[in-house]
Amino acid sequence: MLKRYFPILQWLPSYKKSYLSGDVGAGLTVGIMLIPQGMAYAMIAGLPPVFGLYASLIPQIIYAILGTSRQLAVGPVAMDSLLVASGLGALALSGIDEYIAMAIFLALFMGLIQLGLGLLRMGFLVNFLSKPVISGFTSAAAIIIGLSQLKHLLGTPIQSSNQIHFLLKNALATITDTNMITLAIGVIAIILIKSIKKIDSRIPAALVVVVVGVLGIYFLGLNDLGVKIVGEVPSGLPTFQVPSIDYSRVSELLPIAMTLALIAFMEAISVAKAIEEKHQGYQVDPNQELIALGTSNILGSFFQSYPTTGGFSRTAVNDQAGAKTGVAPIVSAMVVGLTLMFLTPLFYYLPNAVLAAIIMVAVFGLIDIKYPIDLLKNRRDEFYLLLATFLITLTVGIKEGILLGVLISLLLLVYRTSRPHIAVLGRIRNTDYFKNIARFPEDTETFKEFLIIRFDAQLYFGNREYFKNELQNQLDKKGPEVKYVILNAEAINYIDSSAVHMLRQLINELKNKGIKLVVAGAIGPARDIFYSSGLINEIGKDNFFVKTNEAFEHCNPLSKKTEIEEMISLQSKKDKAKLMKLKHS
Amino acid sequence: MLKRYFPILQWLPSYKKSYLSGDVGAGLTVGIMLIPQGMAYAMIAGLPPVFGLYASLIPQIIYAILGTSRQLAVGPVAMDSLLVASGLGALALSGIDEYIAMAIFLALFMGLIQLGLGLLRMGFLVNFLSKPVISGFTSAAAIIIGLSQLKHLLGTPIQSSNQIHFLLKNALATITDTNMITLAIGVIAIILIKSIKKIDSRIPAALVVVVVGVLGIYFLGLNDLGVKIVGEVPSGLPTFQVPSIDYSRVSELLPIAMTLALIAFMEAISVAKAIEEKHQGYQVDPNQELIALGTSNILGSFFQSYPTTGGFSRTAVNDQAGAKTGVAPIVSAMVVGLTLMFLTPLFYYLPNAVLAAIIMVAVFGLIDIKYPIDLLKNRRDEFYLLLATFLITLTVGIKEGILLGVLISLLLLVYRTSRPHIAVLGRIRNTDYFKNIARFPEDTETFKEFLIIRFDAQLYFGNREYFKNELQNQLDKKGPEVKYVILNAEAINYIDSSAVHMLRQLINELKNKGIKLVVAGAIGPARDIFYSSGLINEIGKDNFFVKTNEAFEHCNPLSKKTEIEEMISLQSKKDKAKLMKLKHS
Repeated sequence: MLKRYFPILQWLPSYKKSYLSGDVGAGLTVGIMLIPQGMAYAMIAGLPPVFGLYASLIPQIIYAILGTSRQLAVGPVAMDSLLVASGLGALALSGIDEYIAMAIFLALFMGLIQLGLGLLRMGFLVNFLSKPVISGFTSAAAIIIGLSQLKHLLGTPIQSSNQIHFLLKNALATITDTNMITLAIGVIAIILIKSIKKIDSRIPAALVVVVVGVLGIYFLGLNDLGVKIVGEVPSGLPTFQVPSIDYSRVSELLPIAMTLALIAFMEAISVAKAIEEKHQGYQVDPNQELIALGTSNILGSFFQSYPTTGGFSRTAVNDQAGAKTGVAPIVSAMVVGLTLMFLTPLFYYLPNAVLAAIIMVAVFGLIDIKYPIDLLKNRRDEFYLLLATFLITLTVGIKEGILLGVLISLLLLVYRTSRPHIAVLGRIRNTDYFKNIARFPEDTETFKEFLIIRFDAQLYFGNREYFKNELQNQLDKKGPEVKYVILNAEAINYIDSSAVHMLRQLINELKNKGIKLVVAGAIGPARDIFYSSGLINEIGKDNFFVKTNEAFEHCNPLSKKTEIEEMISLQSKKDKAKLMKLKHS
Repeated sequence: MLKRYFPILQWLPSYKKSYLSGDVGAGLTVGIMLIPQGMAYAMIAGLPPVFGLYASLIPQIIYAILGTSRQLAVGPVAMDSLLVASGLGALALSGIDEYIAMAIFLALFMGLIQLGLGLLRMGFLVNFLSKPVISGFTSAAAIIIGLSQLKHLLGTPIQSSNQIHFLLKNALATITDTNMITLAIGVIAIILIKSIKKIDSRIPAALVVVVVGVLGIYFLGLNDLGVKIVGEVPSGLPTFQVPSIDYSRVSELLPIAMTLALIAFMEAISVAKAIEEKHQGYQVDPNQELIALGTSNILGSFFQSYPTTGGFSRTAVNDQAGAKTGVAPIVSAMVVGLTLMFLTPLFYYLPNAVLAAIIMVAVFGLIDIKYPIDLLKNRRDEFYLLLATFLITLTVGIKEGILLGVLISLLLLVYRTSRPHIAVLGRIRNTDYFKNIARFPEDTETFKEFLIIRFDAQLYFGNREYFKNELQNQLDKKGPEVKYVILNAEAINYIDSSAVHMLRQLINELKNKGIKLVVAGAIGPARDIFYSSGLINEIGKDNFFVKTNEAFEHCNPLSKKTEIEEMISLQSKKDKAKLMKLKHS
């Protein structure tokens, strides 16, 4: 029980010496990566760079204790940072101090929501984010995040926005003020990162450009030529401090905290699941992940951390570098801690353009082109879903993009079930297979007196009319000689009360026309409903069969079912006793 | 083509003399019924009684020309009247003249919406109203409508509300002012209507109490004792007058017009469908119905009609009285027209309490007790859906009730598909049936090397994780000896791209464990997706079978499929050419 809520107890007691080199190596690598990344992400969020380092301390350590993934690297990430910026940008705040206080409060708020969802076991919610929605959303968010860094790359005061048309308009308005040296530094940094990654992906490219950038500015004195630099980074660890809660803001911040909680969870769980598949010996539990991430954010907020989660890129690096357990994040937190204590003066001359370059390379890598093209070829409906999510996220907003994406995908699902596939079956010659005559036009034989139909979905209020109309159409096509309608019910996994009502009417109408309805292959849940609704008596127990072929054979010469056929075609939970009797009689 | 948009052309040219007596009889009956009912419903809407008569003229005639039902009686109905009252009650209007103008404008507005929906062929929308939602909504609306008449029954100035707690509170606040004579008249009228209906349902009970009421007041002089009477009803037909459109109100009125358009359509279509089932020779077309009802409301609004639709009670009477075609409503419109021209002075002494009694008896008859009890016994989830719709309609509002009801029923659908039924199959001894071992525990045999599983739903983003987890659980239960997973895919009618991604991972994971995935009974649409996604190659064409039994037999000694088995198990739209080749080789 304790192990369930504290997964560290699952691996720490049986920790093997052989894990240590991997854990320490990965911890060092991720720690070194975190320093420029953390500062860059804080900049996306509109916070002073040092807050990215604060957010890289406590949350990692808490996650090591509570998380179920052994490779997930928790800390500041680009998407959350953008959400913080877009959420707080909409509020009227008095200045940077209130802005910082609100960002830290958001970490507490989203953490509480995540913890609550985890305790309520709502982790399954993340299942409703389909791949097209995630892909469209991620690509659009990457573009917005990348463009949000234009101001640092060009050295111009571009007004922030999370809508692409305003971003581009604002950028164009100030493009003549571009600081060419700043732009040159940024472009060189981008080329440098790309080249280093090509040469050897294990070299910490971000750190290299940071070092080169600092040295370049320092020795060339470029900051005197208008190149913006990070400036003084306060040294020392963050202190314990209760987050200031402004109750009047709670309702304003609720939507953004909610979005943060879910998006952050989605990002963490999808990368954790992807990594889990490559490993054995542990299982990622979505509900415990919510608890772990929530607690990381809550406790982090008491040490000046802004919203964090498990990020894509650092988790991948952590895994590749050989992380085996939560020891790795503890090592990387130590790297960040030591940096905060002793190395912050080194970042004084770091140009903002270098941080912008690091961000741009990272996020543009998230834009996925291949998958939409795949969908365009094979899944037109899902392609439009992706496109809609992408465009809404780009032009309306981050929150709106994900929400409407989920909504549209649910509507697609409903639409699909409201007009499901219906097949008219014929017998494949010389076999007992009954298959769609439209797919096997030459091989099937059909029979004047029989309409054999398969309905491929649950029967519910949304498709009962469609079912009835289609059946009627097929009857009209067949002409007046039809004596039997055989309904292959293999794919009907549920029948709701509205559909039961429709079936009842249908049976009567068919009876009036002298047509008998016969049911073949009804599965357990459907049989239960045939019983509980009383439809079983209206159709008649003699008219239930296991297979289409049996239904067909029995209708033809009207022979009797065998005992086992009788039993299986009629079995239901509610009628067990009766069937037992039948069986033993 | 013309016949499609003007269904009158379908029946008028072939009109038979034998129809006439039924049509005229029904037209007279409904016309006589309409006079007290129309006045009563106008009172629900907060309008002077004469507007109920205006609404009984033009819309009926237009519907006779454009409607596809031959028995539907269009005119003012209780539900629409209540919606008008609740919608306009929320606006700040200057007085009764503006109120009337707005009510007429609503008819135009809702008519345009209905016409638009009809032309866009959105009639299928009504399918999303499930029986529990309709039942809960109707019962609650009936209670609200009935209670809204308390003020006329008690003769007290009860403030209107469409929320039951306010209605009751307001009624209790003034209960001591009850006019005992008014109450007595109302109660006697209710008893009289009930008794007449029991004696002979063909007697127009409403008309009888109206006559008795008028005579009673006139001869006993009760209006001098504080009994409220209808007073002067203007005589003459409504004149042509362009509805005044207040553009500043359009956005305020949009939600109520939208609700009216849909609810009115739902009421009309459900009663039209119910009547259609009893007749032959015509078909109700939902899209044409939208066009007909919309045009009736639009043209009606130019002759001072407020929102109308096809009502339950008058349609039932029209049918029972023998209406065969649109001639019947034309006759009943003539009855109303003659009344307006010559008989309005007769209604001067009609007590409001009698109209309230007519309304109360009518609507309380709509409250359905049996159906919820049925659901409570057999369908707990749908019972809660009904209850939620009922309570929201009663306590929050009419619009909210129907909207949230639909939303909850869609969420139920999504929830159901997100955790579908999964069965582990075993072979029924001495047969080739493979059935759920949980349902046939004693009769099935299972095999150490085989996990045979049936998934009873489409595979999509919302249940892919569930599918994978359940499969994993079953594998863990079975132990390490499993060599084959046979997936019975008969009920998998769709696989979305998120689920394809999951299947791809799953196949790899199974391969790594030395387990082979075999697919049995994949239906056409699923086969198409196996092909287009490339999954067919990852699973291997040899591993597709028509029946579970064949999959099982072939895995056991690894014999070859017959040619016909090969063809059917692999057929797909995309691969037809190849298969033809195979077939003819």
